[in-house]
Amino acid sequence: MSAEIESYINSLGRAARAAAGELRKLSTARKNAALLEIANALENAREAIAAANAQDVATAKENGLAPAMVDRLTLTQARFDSMVQGIRAIAALPDPVGEIIWKRSRPSGIAIEKVREPFGVIAVVFESRPNVFADTAALTFKTSNAVILRGGKEAVRSNTALAEAVREGLRRADAPVDAVQFVGVQDHDAVRALVRCVEYVDVAIPRGGERLIRAMCEAALIPVLKHYKGTCHIYVDCKANLPMALAIIHNAKVQRPSACNAVECLLVHEKLAPLFLPMARAWAEGEGVVLHESDQDWTREFLALEMNVGVVANVDEAIAHINRYGSHHTDAIVTDDAEIAAHFRRDVDSAVVCHNASTRFTDGGEFGFGAEIGISTDKLHARGPMGLEELTTYKYLLSGDGSIRQ
Amino acid sequence: MSAEIESYINSLGRAARAAAGELRKLSTARKNAALLEIANALENAREAIAAANAQDVATAKENGLAPAMVDRLTLTQARFDSMVQGIRAIAALPDPVGEIIWKRSRPSGIAIEKVREPFGVIAVVFESRPNVFADTAALTFKTSNAVILRGGKEAVRSNTALAEAVREGLRRADAPVDAVQFVGVQDHDAVRALVRCVEYVDVAIPRGGERLIRAMCEAALIPVLKHYKGTCHIYVDCKANLPMALAIIHNAKVQRPSACNAVECLLVHEKLAPLFLPMARAWAEGEGVVLHESDQDWTREFLALEMNVGVVANVDEAIAHINRYGSHHTDAIVTDDAEIAAHFRRDVDSAVVCHNASTRFTDGGEFGFGAEIGISTDKLHARGPMGLEELTTYKYLLSGDGSIRQ
Repeated sequence: MSAEIESYINSLGRAARAAAGELRKLSTARKNAALLEIANALENAREAIAAANAQDVATAKENGLAPAMVDRLTLTQARFDSMVQGIRAIAALPDPVGEIIWKRSRPSGIAIEKVREPFGVIAVVFESRPNVFADTAALTFKTSNAVILRGGKEAVRSNTALAEAVREGLRRADAPVDAVQFVGVQDHDAVRALVRCVEYVDVAIPRGGERLIRAMCEAALIPVLKHYKGTCHIYVDCKANLPMALAIIHNAKVQRPSACNAVECLLVHEKLAPLFLPMARAWAEGEGVVLHESDQDWTREFLALEMNVGVVANVDEAIAHINRYGSHHTDAIVTDDAEIAAHFRRDVDSAVVCHNASTRFTDGGEFGFGAEIGISTDKLHARGPMGLEELTTYKYLLSGDGSIRQ
Repeated sequence: MSAEIESYINSLGRAARAAAGELRKLSTARKNAALLEIANALENAREAIAAANAQDVATAKENGLAPAMVDRLTLTQARFDSMVQGIRAIAALPDPVGEIIWKRSRPSGIAIEKVREPFGVIAVVFESRPNVFADTAALTFKTSNAVILRGGKEAVRSNTALAEAVREGLRRADAPVDAVQFVGVQDHDAVRALVRCVEYVDVAIPRGGERLIRAMCEAALIPVLKHYKGTCHIYVDCKANLPMALAIIHNAKVQRPSACNAVECLLVHEKLAPLFLPMARAWAEGEGVVLHESDQDWTREFLALEMNVGVVANVDEAIAHINRYGSHHTDAIVTDDAEIAAHFRRDVDSAVVCHNASTRFTDGGEFGFGAEIGISTDKLHARGPMGLEELTTYKYLLSGDGSIRQ
């Protein structure tokens, strides 16, 4: 790792840490006002941002990027509007910072309050979609965290223009401008330097694919909140309501196959298989879904109209299969038997376990979180959908009247 | 890293993962009964354990280990009794697993419960004190986690004997024996293999010095819950009650200087310095405490009757000093001014912030947690004293009646 990139990242970190100290002092009202200024500043810069994005898109096409990638990179009018609207929605959400989680008095005479706190400085590394820039900046700012953002090479002009507008909004609101910083340098070692910046960065959040996440974990000295893939399962138990099972499978596979909470593997109780598999095949044929019924790669996340199908002897075998091959994201059982459902809910080791409901519900909005920064497949700190609360830590405020420990 | 050690650690991991699956099925009553069997088995093995420990101690002395280290290694009768008593106390504590953190119904028709869950498999790496073995095994078992323990080389005979007794207790209780495993091999790469065992280990907890923690973080692919040092401060504000300030400083420095929550640095408001510093010097002389009033190494954790002393212009300078040089563990202010106290509480970025109370209160017992596995200086997942609750994660249980996402 070059000394220059390390020193550059350190300078961003130092500025972010200083901004984080200022952010603690902003009231909720002032933070919300600043978010609205950011939304306004983005709207004012709409043309400049669109021009920068058009250049990125043109370069991406010249370089032969896959059409799906070019699509993700493109900031359409509609996406721009929805990004700005998203920031206004975040301004309207309750502020978790300062919330008292619990308080108690102790026999020693001290009183303890456990209160929600910002982390301080968060590093977010994301890939092609430039709207993630503004979205992430708003979520971290709302929770009084400073953020250092690093986007994909192909979106560097868009992100630079977005960063300028967001910082202009902060400036106008008289909020610390370095609360949002963009890693403009395209050095590959920038991510490595970020996740090793123990002194100034408290946590790193990758918003991208498995490869990016693995590379970050390998290099990291700071904690990384991981959002791995979603190899989600639906287990159709022998006591399932079959039309319900088909409706749930349909929703979980077809509604948005590219989502991480889409189902990738169907497991069927062996007693039910002779009856249900033909129904499933007929459904798949009708919907253009490819079923893999042999030579399955059980860990695969298709993100497309394809899915694995397996037959299991009972709920225990289904649970063992899911815990072994799944990604601990979201797994569902369809059954009318409450006892079997309870067994499945207890023993499946996933962030979200559904009973007679689609896996697609794993989502910050559906959970009532108002916003979502991702879906954690980690078990530490945040598991499942991460909203504003999951962007905070806590501290203990202890008070006495000269209290000393006996 | 040798393939053998990797494969050995993997085999422990696989067995631990299987045990973790069984642990989920044990009721609280069965877990508590097993804890009492473990306590009994340890008492039954008292002589064998004492003999193993005596061998370790003899070897340590032969190898010229420092007396403090030999002391930590020695499992006296009193320490043995307190270890066994500790396990019985853990059996009597409430079980956090299964607790419903919140539940809500959503307009989509689904119901969501957020419930406390075990992590699964925890790796704990500890240093010389063998009683940590039994203590940790009991805490992790109580929270339905399987544990893989790795102790210091100098305590290998003691730990082997303790592991045998604990596992005998599990066997008698008909609980999964591999819920508690000991890394008997003394290969240096064992720790490295443990913290890279992504497939089978969910989290690693070091219970040892800074060097061990740094080495684990550098190698880790799994999350590490860090318990770094405690460079704790007391800031005596110009509006402090001086006898109260002295009493708190005395308690925080003298009661147990080797504890991580002992104070290491005294900061005094400049207006108060001419009056208070002579009082502090007189106190220090009387107690044999060495005050460092020049050439201070501000980050130093003395763990002895020594402390740094500094003069600051005001509360802001105190806060800046603490956030810069402290270890984000525990820091205190002594003042009668509620506004200044509030300012200090908000802006000091530490796990525990005390107002008119000793830093020594940062302790699981003092917080009412019943047990403590350490004091986290991390901000992710657990901050400050870690009790049973902090050895758990959560999952979401979602139920519907054929609910699909719109």
